[in-house]
Amino acid sequence: MNGREKGLAEGILYTDFYQLTMAQLYFRAGLHEKPVQFEYFFRNYPAYDSHQAGYCIHAGLEWLVNWMCQVRVTSKETEYLRQQTGRGGKPLFQDDFLEWLEDQGDFSRLSLQAVPEGRVVHPNVPLAVVNGPCAMAQILESSLLNHLNYQTLIATKASRIRDASSGGLVIDFGMRRGQGLGANAGARAALIGGARFSSNTGLSSVMGVPPKGTHAHSMVQAFMALGQGELGAFRAYAAVYPDDCLLLVDTIDTLGSGVPNAITVFRELRKKGHQPFGIRLDSGDLAYLSIQAAKMLDDAGFPDTTIVLSNKLDELVIWQIVSQIRKESPRYGIDPEKLISRLAYGVGTRLITSQGDAALDGVYKLTAVQDQGEWVPAIKLSESIGKIINPGDKGVWRVYDQREEATADLICRGDEDPRKESSLTLCHPTDPSVRRTVPRERISSLEPLLVDVLKEGNLVYEFPSLEQIRKRRDADLARLDSGVKRLINPHRYHISLSRRLWELKEKLIQEQRSSK
Amino acid sequence: MNGREKGLAEGILYTDFYQLTMAQLYFRAGLHEKPVQFEYFFRNYPAYDSHQAGYCIHAGLEWLVNWMCQVRVTSKETEYLRQQTGRGGKPLFQDDFLEWLEDQGDFSRLSLQAVPEGRVVHPNVPLAVVNGPCAMAQILESSLLNHLNYQTLIATKASRIRDASSGGLVIDFGMRRGQGLGANAGARAALIGGARFSSNTGLSSVMGVPPKGTHAHSMVQAFMALGQGELGAFRAYAAVYPDDCLLLVDTIDTLGSGVPNAITVFRELRKKGHQPFGIRLDSGDLAYLSIQAAKMLDDAGFPDTTIVLSNKLDELVIWQIVSQIRKESPRYGIDPEKLISRLAYGVGTRLITSQGDAALDGVYKLTAVQDQGEWVPAIKLSESIGKIINPGDKGVWRVYDQREEATADLICRGDEDPRKESSLTLCHPTDPSVRRTVPRERISSLEPLLVDVLKEGNLVYEFPSLEQIRKRRDADLARLDSGVKRLINPHRYHISLSRRLWELKEKLIQEQRSSK
Repeated sequence: MNGREKGLAEGILYTDFYQLTMAQLYFRAGLHEKPVQFEYFFRNYPAYDSHQAGYCIHAGLEWLVNWMCQVRVTSKETEYLRQQTGRGGKPLFQDDFLEWLEDQGDFSRLSLQAVPEGRVVHPNVPLAVVNGPCAMAQILESSLLNHLNYQTLIATKASRIRDASSGGLVIDFGMRRGQGLGANAGARAALIGGARFSSNTGLSSVMGVPPKGTHAHSMVQAFMALGQGELGAFRAYAAVYPDDCLLLVDTIDTLGSGVPNAITVFRELRKKGHQPFGIRLDSGDLAYLSIQAAKMLDDAGFPDTTIVLSNKLDELVIWQIVSQIRKESPRYGIDPEKLISRLAYGVGTRLITSQGDAALDGVYKLTAVQDQGEWVPAIKLSESIGKIINPGDKGVWRVYDQREEATADLICRGDEDPRKESSLTLCHPTDPSVRRTVPRERISSLEPLLVDVLKEGNLVYEFPSLEQIRKRRDADLARLDSGVKRLINPHRYHISLSRRLWELKEKLIQEQRSSK
Repeated sequence: MNGREKGLAEGILYTDFYQLTMAQLYFRAGLHEKPVQFEYFFRNYPAYDSHQAGYCIHAGLEWLVNWMCQVRVTSKETEYLRQQTGRGGKPLFQDDFLEWLEDQGDFSRLSLQAVPEGRVVHPNVPLAVVNGPCAMAQILESSLLNHLNYQTLIATKASRIRDASSGGLVIDFGMRRGQGLGANAGARAALIGGARFSSNTGLSSVMGVPPKGTHAHSMVQAFMALGQGELGAFRAYAAVYPDDCLLLVDTIDTLGSGVPNAITVFRELRKKGHQPFGIRLDSGDLAYLSIQAAKMLDDAGFPDTTIVLSNKLDELVIWQIVSQIRKESPRYGIDPEKLISRLAYGVGTRLITSQGDAALDGVYKLTAVQDQGEWVPAIKLSESIGKIINPGDKGVWRVYDQREEATADLICRGDEDPRKESSLTLCHPTDPSVRRTVPRERISSLEPLLVDVLKEGNLVYEFPSLEQIRKRRDADLARLDSGVKRLINPHRYHISLSRRLWELKEKLIQEQRSSK
């Protein structure tokens, strides 16, 4: 794509075409300026074949808001739309609409509330709420979903991988298997959710995190082809990076050639006063090879060198490696916890693609329309009660119990403040027979989750730094029941409706069903 | 990201960090200008749980080459690299290297051969071959993999989905579930592989294809909230798009409300001289609902309206829908082939994520190094014979049998021309006991697959239009055995080595194993 094409493909036309035809319909029906409210939420945690998430980490907000503030309809866009014709060959868009669009086609009249990035989030809870003129709120849909769905998916996967690593360092290696430029969004989300570093250089520069990496097989191959062998390659690397010498040891034979050659070079480095960094294992049985390589390194006097593992890692594979090391390393005279603490994990494909469930099912639904100054709640029926949206303007509260653990997310009507109630009734979102009433004294605190981000297009929110986002993530994870954090078969976190919201939903369902 | 950040994140630093540290190592070792050859290939067809591809459609080349021609190291990049420090706090990159990089840091001295986009391709066959100075050929790796892996993955999935649709129109709806901006690469690849249209507006504009769509539930909801109901929404849509009236009928109740309301509006349209377009079904049992909706539309006098299906479609789901319609529609008095021919498919999540296998395992391997004017083949051993690369400069030929069907891809040494041989020996790539000799008269033609794209940075290739790419795809698919195209358990296409290449590989393996 040339610059002009890139501008079109990544600007405000980065949206599904039906948003634009609907916008013209609203214009024609006089509804385009009507205030409406849309809500973003996801329906289900990612489910990765044999395992599934019990929580998600919210991400993508800052890039979404940046995009919203940077794009607008210009004559380039209307010129393109003017060329679009219907089946009969007539233009699909008329001049009056295109004039309005060129004049008003930005997001400067939208307001946005959202859950901050890095927070633990759950299904059916509004994570972003958009208020504003109907046509532009509609056009926003596709890009909003595109930004939030993917980054939340990957931040979640990264958090699980970090959890499985028992404190080991996680590095994102996913760029080569990402969806084109989506690899940048993936690396950002990975850094938010659980990766400490990324190999993606440009993106690391943007995020203010040093990029990390080791070296490739090709370097060893090149030295081999020139007759200098693996040892020659390692020596060359050590000469250039004496204090950062991390050697990939599996080009020929990990235990027969790579580790012994690495040890030779480490000895040479030490003689010159440098501290060798470590090795990387990229193939074979990583649990077995970790133990054997650790033993060889220990015996040679390098017990503090790092061992980086890579090759098709995900949270279950890492968990299995850690478990196997705990079980088997004592038999080789290796302290398992010491070995686990020196491991780091380069995680690529399975992180950046969220292996097993490559998309979050987040949706953007109309929840209210203003009519004659009054907000009218909107609903969409479905044959499955679980898919019927929660109508109207809403608030979201996190309920902490006396242990300061998050015990439920409570979705209320917008004008409810549960802090003022003497007891809370938590209604199951779909089963009317399941509800519990919790006295106020059993609740340590109630925290509103949504914050103001844009007020009529003005940014009223200061985006936190990556470090602040990570602190928020860690604070949320610390207050989450460990059963909810289980990698397999997690305990189900409670998402509840307030009694008033439940009653509104019931009433609207009955009205719609009887009126159709 | 602001403009400066985007420039860094999408420029030449869109690469893994180790490419840059290796580049400095080559510089320090005096190897940075040494001519080398790298090769891109994938190891396995995508395997989607219960099903798997028997071929791939190559895509991504034009965007890769555009990127290569647009980016280079500038002072912005070297400034960033200059700040990077190692564990001891000292700079990782030295000034002399950074000066060289700022001077020579582009791809203008690389040559590239590649298989054209849209062609049917197979594992282990070189799809792109890079020749040029070692340091820059190394830096290219990550971006090359990022561009080619993903687009080939999605073009392949789209081809399968198109195949399953029995001639029905396939539209890409995936943007909201793509990896951020990767959705653009996904839509492009979908258009190359099998989608006729995309809903992604900006990307469609770049590809010169009209964007397509229907309308969303939110439009119906908005009219419902304003007291005008689904019928009011449909009438409003028909008023604006009388010749393109395609109505989403499942907001309330597909057969009880949506289809009857659509028929009412279609009758009104017809009275005014317009031809109604069709309906979209987005939930429920799409096979059953297609038949019932077709019956209602037929009975009402609209047998030619289109029925668009969407909601979690992929090739197996579409195949199942088509099969069920063939089996069950006669019982309702519906001609199955007539119904199948009026179906179109909006395919989103499962297309853009390549559901079931979200990454192609393409790799970029060093195959040769020039030393004292001679090309020395490079190899990388592995415990698995299947993962040992095919060394040296190579050519790739497609072998057509007397029926003009592709019967094998033959990988030769670069100086071999199998057209000159009186018979061909096709060696199994890993099993020395499996080889067959085919007399020349049983071969109708031998076609070289690689074409010159860049010669020392100069574009010597004219990129084909989307229509030309699609024609090439269709021509290749027509010459592919139907067993290879099966959606499940496909017949295995033959990928063979020439006898001379086999012998070289054997020799290098023995040399390496004995020298380590």
